[in-house]
Amino acid sequence: MKQNLFQNLPDEIPEELFEEIESGKSFRLERIVSDGHKSSPGFWYDQPQQEWVILLQGAARIELDNENDHVELGPGDYLLIPAGRRHRVAWTTPDTKTVWLAIHFDK
Amino acid sequence: MKQNLFQNLPDEIPEELFEEIESGKSFRLERIVSDGHKSSPGFWYDQPQQEWVILLQGAARIELDNENDHVELGPGDYLLIPAGRRHRVAWTTPDTKTVWLAIHFDK
Repeated sequence: MKQNLFQNLPDEIPEELFEEIESGKSFRLERIVSDGHKSSPGFWYDQPQQEWVILLQGAARIELDNENDHVELGPGDYLLIPAGRRHRVAWTTPDTKTVWLAIHFDK
Repeated sequence: MKQNLFQNLPDEIPEELFEEIESGKSFRLERIVSDGHKSSPGFWYDQPQQEWVILLQGAARIELDNENDHVELGPGDYLLIPAGRRHRVAWTTPDTKTVWLAIHFDK
């Protein structure tokens, strides 16, 4: 009945991997696995729900629209991306698989 | 704007520590820090919402009502505890602080 977030990582991940773990009323929890992936140039996520995201393995850099600094993330780092706040993944480490949890919810 | 799940752990935790990180419609995310704590003998959690819980540091054992086996949890292990499913924390390691994320939500 238990599962492990760091197991069942495919060897080859041609594209960033999104897997739903749980969902409910106005709520969705997903595991994201990146393997050196980043958002395409000029691509921005623009989502109607709040997104809380935590990086638990690997390393990444998120770019938020209208911010000068990118946000560097290492294991345990989390942030809230408010609904409608444009953002993109500027970089994930090529050295290991990066594992995230993302929660999409309504305020 | 980012924070780290494994930082700001108090040196002394007389009682298990529950801290809300985010909340929304029918949704609550909390960090739990245990330091060798366990539920009192005979105490059972019996909650009206679904609880998804992941252990990210340390080790613990959860007891579910009407199950013969306890669930042993190490870093990355997660499980869903359905609404109304009685459960208790049978053990957390005394060797280090145990850090959990718990999500309470409605189906």
